[in-house]
Amino acid sequence: MVNTSNSPESTREINDLRRAMAKHGIDAWIIPSSDAHNSEYVARHWEGRAWLSGFTGSAGTVVVTRDKAALWTDGRYFIQAAEQLAGSGITLMKDGQPGVPAMADWVAKEVKKQGVVGFDGAVLTLGTTRNLEKKLADKTISLKGDNDLLKEIWANRPELPAEPVFLHDAFYAGKSLMDKVAEVREALTERKATELLITTLDDIAWLFNLRGSDIECNPVFLAYALISQESITLFTNKSRIETDALTVLESAGVKIAGYHEIPGRLSSLPDNTHLMLNPVSTSYKLASVIPPSVALIEDRLPTTDLKAIKNSTEIERMKECHRRDGAAMVRFIRWLENNIPAGELNEVNIDEQLLQFRSESEYFRGVSFPSIVGYAGHGAICHYRADEESAYKIETKGLLLIDSGGQYPDGTTDITRTFACGEMTDEEMRDYTLVLKSHIALATAKFKEGTRGIQLDAITRQPLWSQGIDFNHGTGHGVGYFLNVHEGPQSISPRWFDVALKPGMLITDEPGIYRDNKHGIRLENIMLIAEDMENEFGKFFKLIPMTLVPFDTQPLVKELMTDSEIQWLNSYHGTVRKELSKSVQGEDLKWLEQATQPI
Amino acid sequence: MVNTSNSPESTREINDLRRAMAKHGIDAWIIPSSDAHNSEYVARHWEGRAWLSGFTGSAGTVVVTRDKAALWTDGRYFIQAAEQLAGSGITLMKDGQPGVPAMADWVAKEVKKQGVVGFDGAVLTLGTTRNLEKKLADKTISLKGDNDLLKEIWANRPELPAEPVFLHDAFYAGKSLMDKVAEVREALTERKATELLITTLDDIAWLFNLRGSDIECNPVFLAYALISQESITLFTNKSRIETDALTVLESAGVKIAGYHEIPGRLSSLPDNTHLMLNPVSTSYKLASVIPPSVALIEDRLPTTDLKAIKNSTEIERMKECHRRDGAAMVRFIRWLENNIPAGELNEVNIDEQLLQFRSESEYFRGVSFPSIVGYAGHGAICHYRADEESAYKIETKGLLLIDSGGQYPDGTTDITRTFACGEMTDEEMRDYTLVLKSHIALATAKFKEGTRGIQLDAITRQPLWSQGIDFNHGTGHGVGYFLNVHEGPQSISPRWFDVALKPGMLITDEPGIYRDNKHGIRLENIMLIAEDMENEFGKFFKLIPMTLVPFDTQPLVKELMTDSEIQWLNSYHGTVRKELSKSVQGEDLKWLEQATQPI
Repeated sequence: MVNTSNSPESTREINDLRRAMAKHGIDAWIIPSSDAHNSEYVARHWEGRAWLSGFTGSAGTVVVTRDKAALWTDGRYFIQAAEQLAGSGITLMKDGQPGVPAMADWVAKEVKKQGVVGFDGAVLTLGTTRNLEKKLADKTISLKGDNDLLKEIWANRPELPAEPVFLHDAFYAGKSLMDKVAEVREALTERKATELLITTLDDIAWLFNLRGSDIECNPVFLAYALISQESITLFTNKSRIETDALTVLESAGVKIAGYHEIPGRLSSLPDNTHLMLNPVSTSYKLASVIPPSVALIEDRLPTTDLKAIKNSTEIERMKECHRRDGAAMVRFIRWLENNIPAGELNEVNIDEQLLQFRSESEYFRGVSFPSIVGYAGHGAICHYRADEESAYKIETKGLLLIDSGGQYPDGTTDITRTFACGEMTDEEMRDYTLVLKSHIALATAKFKEGTRGIQLDAITRQPLWSQGIDFNHGTGHGVGYFLNVHEGPQSISPRWFDVALKPGMLITDEPGIYRDNKHGIRLENIMLIAEDMENEFGKFFKLIPMTLVPFDTQPLVKELMTDSEIQWLNSYHGTVRKELSKSVQGEDLKWLEQATQPI
Repeated sequence: MVNTSNSPESTREINDLRRAMAKHGIDAWIIPSSDAHNSEYVARHWEGRAWLSGFTGSAGTVVVTRDKAALWTDGRYFIQAAEQLAGSGITLMKDGQPGVPAMADWVAKEVKKQGVVGFDGAVLTLGTTRNLEKKLADKTISLKGDNDLLKEIWANRPELPAEPVFLHDAFYAGKSLMDKVAEVREALTERKATELLITTLDDIAWLFNLRGSDIECNPVFLAYALISQESITLFTNKSRIETDALTVLESAGVKIAGYHEIPGRLSSLPDNTHLMLNPVSTSYKLASVIPPSVALIEDRLPTTDLKAIKNSTEIERMKECHRRDGAAMVRFIRWLENNIPAGELNEVNIDEQLLQFRSESEYFRGVSFPSIVGYAGHGAICHYRADEESAYKIETKGLLLIDSGGQYPDGTTDITRTFACGEMTDEEMRDYTLVLKSHIALATAKFKEGTRGIQLDAITRQPLWSQGIDFNHGTGHGVGYFLNVHEGPQSISPRWFDVALKPGMLITDEPGIYRDNKHGIRLENIMLIAEDMENEFGKFFKLIPMTLVPFDTQPLVKELMTDSEIQWLNSYHGTVRKELSKSVQGEDLKWLEQATQPI
């Protein structure tokens, strides 16, 4: 199943790392894909895993031992990782597939008794290291997280970013810093905590109503925060905070300390502190400096739950954001249809044109993630990123998958459509129709209060499972508001997460079908969870699409659709037409009217 | 929400208990519904909770403090418990409803600092007491489980049963004791266990291919077992084991010890023992005698997982059992239809007649649980049990719910049908149709390897949720083979259980709709999980109905059903007709042909 034979090849980076490991007496070195804040997307300073392995996906952990190297990643990246790791001597470990050992189990097996496992303690979380400790205890293998070997071997490593930090106006945010702090303090009282440590960047940006651009696509800034009943401290480079933002912070009594002052502050917490933190996102290094006399209250942060429920201002503003993004998409799709026949389009210039349409809005603040433009077999690579070298030319046949999104002060968008480029095979049309059926199964689902994502996931997949088809990624993720395109705690996935779906949460609806070297299909809208009804049986919720972009109806096999599925599609297209008709003009409007005709 | 005011009333039994508590310095006394084997149904000796509280449901825990008393039970029993507790001074705690404290939390709140919580250590499990210990630690409340106060206050308490134990022939069991032991030993080696403690009665009956009748409806016998690589010990009253069974046991080298010898044997386990046990079913009392030098391996027992996957002999034999039970049901339903108009039927004499039809088979070994026969509003009481006093007369209108089952050497049946007794309201017909849609949603579901019950539960409930309707019980449970009608580890429920559904497992499909004081509808078949297909996307499973009994089609609103739902019903009825046509004759056969006509 898993090839663990010694590979003859090895890269210069890995050889350098092995030399450093030998010098420091380390038997295995772990590099995850995260930064000191457990971010999914990281500043280039923390792209050590990509630097070492060549694998550029957003999720993956590499482990190098004295004679082996392996990388764990999930289903979204199996194809990409296999391509990028070729020749590196690194074995691909397909996380969650039968017979594939978990990273910690593999390390426990590979490292000798009383060996040493090393890592940069800033980028491995408390949760991960605790799990490792447990797995390694039998062989009395020890952990060493106090020295980052990459410092010795990574020449020209990028510096930590310190881009300007600006105010996210109350007009958009809908709630002031002090109102948010009051809610956080209430939660702390409830949990008997005296102090809250926030290390996750989106929680900090949300709480302080600040945004930055330290990380590509994610309008966050490097910072930590400590909140107690008496004080609010933000740890970040003060000089880069814009003046009006600084005024708001100061009037709210926020103390500003340096980014690197957080360990010192934690190490001097008084004995009677009850410190709340999230072990899933707090780094091993930070956790290590907390005095043992401090009582830890470990849980998801209250900011994470509060941020997930969008307030009424956010929901209202967001509608405008989706009209704007939808209008850009409509203009783009018409352009695409008009230009495919000429044969000059490829996966890269398509993306440039899409960026162009979005950029024409004065509110556009950049893309919310690198677009995925995958034609034919490239569409089957779930998080494919085209470059000049790899880009396919678009022919007048088959399917083209485009997953993209934008950042706006009034929201973050994330939309996937798959387009017919001309002639299609029966399999392409059938698969496309099945994916839309799956999308509609979720879009029309009603569910009882207390329902978890895993339950909605099964409802979504049923039209695919019934045909013996499945896809290797989650069905839906939370979405930030002018923040990270992936945010928790909610998710819709076949994995169990004990998080109830609640009104006010955003969640994507994005099932797919991927056939290696043939095609990839994914259809994605952002949905708002809303109340539906309440009666003797309880409270029931529903999903309302926020995304306003027509689905391509050309690949549909109408006979495979039920009346109610057709009805949903026609009604959604009616809404799209109505909502966008003031945002597009002329030929684009004509195209919109045509594209949203009932089928 | 919850009424915790002191009740003015209190029964003699509770007063006696409080006196005994005072004498022994105990502040709260807990009585669960289980026996020393964590059985769901128990011998009368262990019906202390029913004796004390008057509540006779199969699940419920009563706690009595010096001045309060409360009983926790689940959604199946809310109505029954409310009726039976009336006037007892015992507050009903609806488990899992918003605002209702968990039993352990309530005890922690009610008992004073450094107080004492008492219980019979034989009937509380290790898992439950550990949870209690955690909750009570803050107030340094101690647990006392070494003295059963019921001994002092329960006059004429029934003795422990010791009914004959007989062989379950290999013709039916399909696998010998030694083959099963070999599989168990393999599992022990895998888990690095040297010894296995089995305390659950159905695991023991299954492993030894023995059956008994110590507990009503459940063909088990009181026993414990210890299995190592070298020895097999069965702890039960030897004199009641039938001769041929004894011969088989002896030829397999099984040592037989007395039922009460288990604590002594556990307390003398050698130091290097790695003992596997299930904390969820092992009693506090037994766990307490295990020397601290013994290493515990705590998990679900391998016997539980092995027993759940029916072998090919069991599956083949079981088909005959369902033909037999189906034929009895067909004769019963025709009788029911013919006799309702005369106006002489009630919930009790209906059940007697049903028993009569089942008893006419020489293979019938008794009912698998007390029938639930609920007319009109009584149907809404999920585990209602009629008696002469409460029984409704059946009128020529409305709905009648009948949930019943039989024990046979080749299987255990469990079937629910709901019948139109004459005129019906629109609501009754609509609800009936929705329940059938929900039943079909599960029956037609296909699902990927690794799917958990919570996922299928959502698929089943979707037709109800979409109409703002829900039901307060699980969708499906495992079923024994000439064993307990409820068996694990699988279940289909909105609660998360980390148990993958596997081919060979049996699971019921029994959604329902219950409207207080109006009607109850439930439609239940036993389903076999089977392989469907395997391809590039993975392995997919499906469900095959084992139960062979027509559904009443009179209450159906055909316009609410999709074509594929109608197709499933007609196809199922075709199978029922084909399979039962040799088992029923004359007028019954004519009725069967009529009842299974396509709609």
